[in-house]
Amino acid sequence: MPGKLLVIGGAESHDAGDDAILERFVLLAGGTEAHIVVIATASESPAQREKEYGEVFHRLGVERVTPLRLESREDANGDLAVSAIERATGVFFTGGDQLRITTVVGGSKVDSALHSRLADGMILAGTSAGAAMMSSTMILGGSIASVSTSSVLTGPGMEFLPGVLIDMHFAERGRLNRLLSAIAMFPHELGLGIDENTAILVEGDVFEVLGAGAVTVIDAGPARAISCPSPDTVPGGPIALWGVQLHVLPAGHLFNLTERTPVKRSEEDHAH
Amino acid sequence: MPGKLLVIGGAESHDAGDDAILERFVLLAGGTEAHIVVIATASESPAQREKEYGEVFHRLGVERVTPLRLESREDANGDLAVSAIERATGVFFTGGDQLRITTVVGGSKVDSALHSRLADGMILAGTSAGAAMMSSTMILGGSIASVSTSSVLTGPGMEFLPGVLIDMHFAERGRLNRLLSAIAMFPHELGLGIDENTAILVEGDVFEVLGAGAVTVIDAGPARAISCPSPDTVPGGPIALWGVQLHVLPAGHLFNLTERTPVKRSEEDHAH
Repeated sequence: MPGKLLVIGGAESHDAGDDAILERFVLLAGGTEAHIVVIATASESPAQREKEYGEVFHRLGVERVTPLRLESREDANGDLAVSAIERATGVFFTGGDQLRITTVVGGSKVDSALHSRLADGMILAGTSAGAAMMSSTMILGGSIASVSTSSVLTGPGMEFLPGVLIDMHFAERGRLNRLLSAIAMFPHELGLGIDENTAILVEGDVFEVLGAGAVTVIDAGPARAISCPSPDTVPGGPIALWGVQLHVLPAGHLFNLTERTPVKRSEEDHAH
Repeated sequence: MPGKLLVIGGAESHDAGDDAILERFVLLAGGTEAHIVVIATASESPAQREKEYGEVFHRLGVERVTPLRLESREDANGDLAVSAIERATGVFFTGGDQLRITTVVGGSKVDSALHSRLADGMILAGTSAGAAMMSSTMILGGSIASVSTSSVLTGPGMEFLPGVLIDMHFAERGRLNRLLSAIAMFPHELGLGIDENTAILVEGDVFEVLGAGAVTVIDAGPARAISCPSPDTVPGGPIALWGVQLHVLPAGHLFNLTERTPVKRSEEDHAH
């Protein structure tokens, strides 16, 4: 995948001088030459979201910002929508309800066009619901009260970033238990808890952390034991996890998703 | 230490049929032969707390329940208080403000008597503030918003359980970040996040988990890197943690505090 993914934990700052995440998005989309498409399908107030992001991207020097209103599968299969994606150098998914994204866009011609543009080197960004949908399996909801088989609800995501489970608003909404619950049941997925106004920028195998908060990485691969009662026979039964690996990564830190390990900046520089 | 410590994460159930934690305390204090002392010094409503726990312990078959009202250092250095502790087979500290416990009881004759009775085999229990104060360093407060040097406030505890940092109401109040913050700065301490209506029963090197929730154990011993900006020069600077070990232990699970590892019940049985 030569393209780049910018996965934002929600509530990224739109304020001048404090908009490092969106500024980086604009830069990677081509700066003043960028052609940015904003998709607010997840939101209940798409017009407002489109206006907000339009204003920020204009302020950051981008002239060509296209709000792409996808409200039905017909929209998402339309030629106009597809050609908008084909012209884009950067696409931005707003927050809202991630199920709106999959039910409207999933499997549509816009979905294919997004994957194909990403393969061509485009940058795809999403915040909150727009971040959650990026993975192959996405978190749909859950409880923060305990680590149990009934504490998390998952479903197929849009498959832009395989091998991970993304949770957003992570510190702000205390979502460790629901991410741990998911990772205990599906330890082949790496858990990424992204704080608000914080993002990961994924290029190839490596992501870099941007923004004000931290990314909590949960790796149940090395776990010595996982005890997970069947949700069918013991609903809400408690999960035991022995030996999960956890990393807390603030801005500037790098992580290799294939090696499942933080990377020293110098190591990474040598690798290039 | 031949004595036993029962460290409760707060809000333990007092209801008949759902009081496994307090029932275990009574059993280990001698059952119907127990002599239980209740210390509600941490609380702003000590009379109410004394009455509540008196009723529960009476219902559980204990006749001799003594509320020991310690409101001043004079009280805590008094002969009457000391002899109450000397007669006790179990002492219970209620919740409230842990600083009330240290400022009134810390370094007093009652403090010495408690340590000495514990060495004789007594059981000492505490919930919430009464749990936090058990360790050599206790958590006094903090923020859950991020992992940073300003996210946690610690101070010397009552030193009944060295080598650990205890946080309570753990899942319910989403306190991972403040416990991680403390453990990053003091990785020689093991972090124990105890949920509400959940407890650890410590005997020698091993604790057992009791109750409805789980205990989250955070071990920064094996961490590959910890980056911790000086709180003096970079107040609130973000902490990076690479490779922290995390365990989630529900009821019935055992953990060895010296080896810093979960223990299989059968392994432990063989060891005895």
